[in-house]
Amino acid sequence: MDHHIKDIELAPAGKKKIEWVRREMPVLSGIAAQWKKDKPLEGVQIAACLHVTSETAVLMITLKEGGANVALCASNPLSTQDEVAASLVKDFGINVFAICGEDRETYYQHIDEVLERNPQITMDDGADLVSTLHQKGGSRISQVIGGTEETTTGVVRLKSMAKAGQLRYPVIAVNDADTKHLFDNRYGTGQSTLEGILRATHILLSGKKVVVVGYGWCGRGIAMRARGMGARVGIVEINPVKALEALMDGYEVMSMLDAAAWGDLFITVTGNISVIRKEHFLQMNDGTILCNSGHFNVEIDRDDLESVSVNRREAQPLVEEFTLSNGKKLFFLAEGRLVNLACAEGHPPTVMDMSFANQALSVKFLKEQASSLENQVYKVPDDIDMNVAHLKLSSLSIKIEELTPRQKKYLASWEEGT
Amino acid sequence: MDHHIKDIELAPAGKKKIEWVRREMPVLSGIAAQWKKDKPLEGVQIAACLHVTSETAVLMITLKEGGANVALCASNPLSTQDEVAASLVKDFGINVFAICGEDRETYYQHIDEVLERNPQITMDDGADLVSTLHQKGGSRISQVIGGTEETTTGVVRLKSMAKAGQLRYPVIAVNDADTKHLFDNRYGTGQSTLEGILRATHILLSGKKVVVVGYGWCGRGIAMRARGMGARVGIVEINPVKALEALMDGYEVMSMLDAAAWGDLFITVTGNISVIRKEHFLQMNDGTILCNSGHFNVEIDRDDLESVSVNRREAQPLVEEFTLSNGKKLFFLAEGRLVNLACAEGHPPTVMDMSFANQALSVKFLKEQASSLENQVYKVPDDIDMNVAHLKLSSLSIKIEELTPRQKKYLASWEEGT
Amino acid sequence: MDHHIKDIELAPAGKKKIEWVRREMPVLSGIAAQWKKDKPLEGVQIAACLHVTSETAVLMITLKEGGANVALCASNPLSTQDEVAASLVKDFGINVFAICGEDRETYYQHIDEVLERNPQITMDDGADLVSTLHQKGGSRISQVIGGTEETTTGVVRLKSMAKAGQLRYPVIAVNDADTKHLFDNRYGTGQSTLEGILRATHILLSGKKVVVVGYGWCGRGIAMRARGMGARVGIVEINPVKALEALMDGYEVMSMLDAAAWGDLFITVTGNISVIRKEHFLQMNDGTILCNSGHFNVEIDRDDLESVSVNRREAQPLVEEFTLSNGKKLFFLAEGRLVNLACAEGHPPTVMDMSFANQALSVKFLKEQASSLENQVYKVPDDIDMNVAHLKLSSLSIKIEELTPRQKKYLASWEEGT
Amino acid sequence: MDHHIKDIELAPAGKKKIEWVRREMPVLSGIAAQWKKDKPLEGVQIAACLHVTSETAVLMITLKEGGANVALCASNPLSTQDEVAASLVKDFGINVFAICGEDRETYYQHIDEVLERNPQITMDDGADLVSTLHQKGGSRISQVIGGTEETTTGVVRLKSMAKAGQLRYPVIAVNDADTKHLFDNRYGTGQSTLEGILRATHILLSGKKVVVVGYGWCGRGIAMRARGMGARVGIVEINPVKALEALMDGYEVMSMLDAAAWGDLFITVTGNISVIRKEHFLQMNDGTILCNSGHFNVEIDRDDLESVSVNRREAQPLVEEFTLSNGKKLFFLAEGRLVNLACAEGHPPTVMDMSFANQALSVKFLKEQASSLENQVYKVPDDIDMNVAHLKLSSLSIKIEELTPRQKKYLASWEEGT
Repeated sequence: MDHHIKDIELAPAGKKKIEWVRREMPVLSGIAAQWKKDKPLEGVQIAACLHVTSETAVLMITLKEGGANVALCASNPLSTQDEVAASLVKDFGINVFAICGEDRETYYQHIDEVLERNPQITMDDGADLVSTLHQKGGSRISQVIGGTEETTTGVVRLKSMAKAGQLRYPVIAVNDADTKHLFDNRYGTGQSTLEGILRATHILLSGKKVVVVGYGWCGRGIAMRARGMGARVGIVEINPVKALEALMDGYEVMSMLDAAAWGDLFITVTGNISVIRKEHFLQMNDGTILCNSGHFNVEIDRDDLESVSVNRREAQPLVEEFTLSNGKKLFFLAEGRLVNLACAEGHPPTVMDMSFANQALSVKFLKEQASSLENQVYKVPDDIDMNVAHLKLSSLSIKIEELTPRQKKYLASWEEGT
Repeated sequence: MDHHIKDIELAPAGKKKIEWVRREMPVLSGIAAQWKKDKPLEGVQIAACLHVTSETAVLMITLKEGGANVALCASNPLSTQDEVAASLVKDFGINVFAICGEDRETYYQHIDEVLERNPQITMDDGADLVSTLHQKGGSRISQVIGGTEETTTGVVRLKSMAKAGQLRYPVIAVNDADTKHLFDNRYGTGQSTLEGILRATHILLSGKKVVVVGYGWCGRGIAMRARGMGARVGIVEINPVKALEALMDGYEVMSMLDAAAWGDLFITVTGNISVIRKEHFLQMNDGTILCNSGHFNVEIDRDDLESVSVNRREAQPLVEEFTLSNGKKLFFLAEGRLVNLACAEGHPPTVMDMSFANQALSVKFLKEQASSLENQVYKVPDDIDMNVAHLKLSSLSIKIEELTPRQKKYLASWEEGT
Repeated sequence: MDHHIKDIELAPAGKKKIEWVRREMPVLSGIAAQWKKDKPLEGVQIAACLHVTSETAVLMITLKEGGANVALCASNPLSTQDEVAASLVKDFGINVFAICGEDRETYYQHIDEVLERNPQITMDDGADLVSTLHQKGGSRISQVIGGTEETTTGVVRLKSMAKAGQLRYPVIAVNDADTKHLFDNRYGTGQSTLEGILRATHILLSGKKVVVVGYGWCGRGIAMRARGMGARVGIVEINPVKALEALMDGYEVMSMLDAAAWGDLFITVTGNISVIRKEHFLQMNDGTILCNSGHFNVEIDRDDLESVSVNRREAQPLVEEFTLSNGKKLFFLAEGRLVNLACAEGHPPTVMDMSFANQALSVKFLKEQASSLENQVYKVPDDIDMNVAHLKLSSLSIKIEELTPRQKKYLASWEEGT
Repeated sequence: MDHHIKDIELAPAGKKKIEWVRREMPVLSGIAAQWKKDKPLEGVQIAACLHVTSETAVLMITLKEGGANVALCASNPLSTQDEVAASLVKDFGINVFAICGEDRETYYQHIDEVLERNPQITMDDGADLVSTLHQKGGSRISQVIGGTEETTTGVVRLKSMAKAGQLRYPVIAVNDADTKHLFDNRYGTGQSTLEGILRATHILLSGKKVVVVGYGWCGRGIAMRARGMGARVGIVEINPVKALEALMDGYEVMSMLDAAAWGDLFITVTGNISVIRKEHFLQMNDGTILCNSGHFNVEIDRDDLESVSVNRREAQPLVEEFTLSNGKKLFFLAEGRLVNLACAEGHPPTVMDMSFANQALSVKFLKEQASSLENQVYKVPDDIDMNVAHLKLSSLSIKIEELTPRQKKYLASWEEGT
């Protein structure tokens, strides 16, 4: 089997979509144009486990232009755009294994399919591929020279592996590139999370009490945009410095228990498990809306939610209504999966352009330098990061300053004072 | 001579001012209360070169409560609050050498006075003290066990010294504590810079084109607040990642030359020299206002400004009017010195509470640990940083979340995925 | 024929949708509950020409609960939610004539169908119903006791009619109620317009140059939210006071010609014709996106756009790509029809709750008071407007202040001064 | 006596100040230049009771250039800039009766002095002049042809007089011009109120809980700017529509009693009496700051505050500390007088430029048209209002759109629909 997708006939719509987003991805398109000539990945087998969206398609095509053989599976059961999957198979010769709404078993079968192609480089979004490979990949792992990881959650998992001495090859934490997390996590997640919520619920954000759980880069982006839409925003945090920042940024800061009784809408972006749970559900007001924009669907504890409920039904597509024993109704979006991908189309291409330019250049870096790396989690090399920023600014015709020789000298000296 | 100040009779007003700001400094006040009992700095001689403001007074008093002998000089000729200096001498027994408006010679004489007391610990804001000590301190330097540095500019200078192998004792970069630069540099500089400009010029910010040169923490704070006051904000940067952030934050990003022709008001916060210079002045519109909120008065090139001018007069207190040969008038605030300290009263006490709690705890750390440190620039220990944040939140009665055991375990594991 | 809709089988999905939005419409629901008992509209025949959305459904049901017979047609060919139309027919006994995507001829046939029922009261959104009735309604018009009008564009048309002495019955300008235009036009249009654009184009708003043409209530809402999403916002206005407000609100203010060369995305909300036309298209950058959120599809001149284009194709659903003879591509959304209704679901129910409570209470007012009114355009009576605001606040459990007797007396006096 | 001021020797500083603000007042300066030639007010005696600031000076000079004889007294005991008063007397030949800090008796003596000059036109800010003239002016009132009023509070008083049939000559409500209240009350009060608070208290606004009492134009401006500085903002209102707007703008809306227990800083702008009173003081937290930016010092009930206090002292200049019997301390700024004028310098010149251009043109209008007016409160004629806006935009080189003939025709027609 060289692909497993919903319907190959969807390819034309997918192709149109890919072309559409490509317009907003000038950095990656520029890399693809260069690689078409240079073929830096000639013959490299790549296994990618990413959200199968139109933006990912542009990355896959870029790798292919660079000479690689690429197999792609989904990094989330609900985030696949089936028409894009179809076009990748039909129009671009990528081996895709992903169907939107696939069950857990199929999800892992698709990962297996991709691994069976004996990849030399892995690309992850959440570390399910690398984790599966390490747990049951057998000897295949020895052929892998390195991997990349897209998201915070995956980086946390990989660092745990490395710390435990169990990581078997070097991984580049693309997430930690400035041109990735400062943009994609913040401006991308901020906008797309709200868009997903609006599509699913059609509520007005003005005047609503929105609780953002987690004030990392994703949480900041969501809070900033929720306020920009007129919401009153509360923040729940565990880190005191971030909590103080949230306060000084003008938000209410509260414990999860206080927030539970206060908010109208809850959005989790912590990368942690069970951050909204039984004790919190019991405090909530009638009509409260719950969703998650963190990587895994574990942040809002669905088992707990079911345990305090007497009834469950679909109120709207992707909106489950849980009736608690106290008679109040809570609305749970997209089964707790990433609301921006499940209810909308994920990050806009212009931020994915930067994230995926880091991905592409990190893959090339691994091809060339992996042998000199240890089995650790690495940052994206600074020159790649800066280069991506420069290319992006240039595509937008934005001019920045350069240091004069006198200024460079001044910065390097210490004698001159008041 | 055990002090050199403007007028000891000003002490009552200074004392009132110190009491007033102390209300907003609960973290430092709490440390002082503890130290009054513990005397952790018993007998230590401290030389401090800081802005002589009411907030600094609270820090000096805290060190004194801890048992130290303290001598204080100004870190900027225009930033001394003379009534505070008077009260420190009269009411609190601190040796102060600082007079607002002192000339360059007196400024350095005051540094010398402080150094003559043979300090064991130095405290700097801009590194003039440490720099003077290294250049002409002679054998005195051998008695110094360590120092602290408050601001970005000073840290840059000290790292240059350390890199050149010329730093003779360890220095704690208080500026680099999260609870310092994320708050003081951003929220403090943001508000106080605008306040200084408003006091000096009385302009309306709404609708004005404000150019912020430098998008570090200070620049972000100023840009955020300028927009919050209704201004249209342009950013000039050398770092492409920061430039992209500025753009995504909704600001105009431009080169200095383009900005020169666009802006109504310019604020420099780069830590660099001659960032606005001859070629830029010549592009500016009639009525343009120029000021600096970076540490040294070198960011706007005054020599260049004079060289293109045919006339200079005082238009208002702290506002110089330069008439260029093309007939246009430019207004230059506070001789290019820190506009928030020269034209207003510097950072509000609530942020200095955190910065100076880091200072106090870093001095104690040096007393206890300096012997194990090398002659390098060190970060504030994480536990001090986190502790300051916790104390601040607690003083504000803000509750944050704590990780459950299950969550701690989850964060440390990697096996669990989709 | 007692209805003409797409597919009666869609009713279950429509009913779910109506139930969902009803949760967010407590004011109108409260009126419906009261009317179910009082039957204030017993036997009144109502013709409504409104956007056939789930929120409108709640209004129709309220009128029906009040005893009225209701026939409903669409006020825009692209804004009908077919499943809602189905449920209104099947579950609630409303005569609906509306199909999403209907052509112009069918659109006017549907208006005729509704008029054939000999209405006593008309309800309009854009004044197509009242205009048709006046132009070719014959003797039917004599039975009409009054009408209501929902939107700015319709009010402008009706005032022109009244001024020309051609209005044949009194009309209540629901649009001019404070609880309508301050909320629906501003917060509703602001959010829903951006949502429509995001759904259609998937662009990132952060950093984009968004031009809002028209700074009335709709324009303010869009500008405020676009900035809230990180865009750089330019405003085009004809009224100098509004232009100054836009400037002081921190936006760029420019002529349409200058804006054409500057913007990335254009949104028209002027209520006027041909505000973006040939001369402007020719100045635009490659990739510019054009859309309208004003009532009629005349604001962006499509004839002009075709006249300067050499090619046209569908780039994405609801996105037309026009290639100009200079090679640049412009993207035109939803054929220039209201982007918030054509590409998303229109205003959120919580604002329509207020707009439609004004509608319902104005219909009741007409039933009771029309005979004392002249053939003019009337404001919604103040007590209705205030009552809607009070009911809304009460549904949100928000407490406001009341004047004390002393304060009432003070406000009525003039003798007391400094 | 032809003037009564603090010290004529202050004139040079005052003149510098007047010249400085004049740069930001191009509209009024343009009128002055025209009037110098035309002398439209030749020989008219004007009595003005306004805040004696540098901006008012520019208005006085304009009237003088127009040929009028002008006598000026203060409209608030704390708002006079003594150096400006000196310059007006010495350099510009204006009869000024105003001393900063004058007591109530002197305040009214100054009003009397101005009235003794037998004015033909009165100019008021708060209606103390017109009120005094009506109460004890005797026959002088018969010579007055008309008056102008600058502020909301004064307009409310004058409308009460007119309603009671007691107004003896026509008054133009300059406050109600769009180019006045939309700008001066909103952007001017917003910025200057915060500036006054910062100067007096030196607090950080980020993270503070700021309660704005009254959500009129002044309240909106303050709320908008307080949020722009990072504060969490609560609104207290009596009007349900305004309360809903505040909520949708993202603020907390609460009753005064709930707000009392919540806020850190209270700002009143209601135009009403005793809005913060005994019951509220008793709920407040230790350290709460209280100030007023409404016209009269009656909004915060000082008698009530004293009645619940056991101690009072000056904590800082213009900051009174009241210790309640429960031990908590409340800080009361500027004796409850306009904090923007008492603690800072009032509105920036660029907004006063518009307000005072309306004043000047309204005086000319009265000179020419008063005989055709009744003893009522009139709006500023629309053409004056629009003209001021056009002149302001022009001075800023901002271009706006003009309607095409086709657009004018479209707006006047009603036949064209979907």
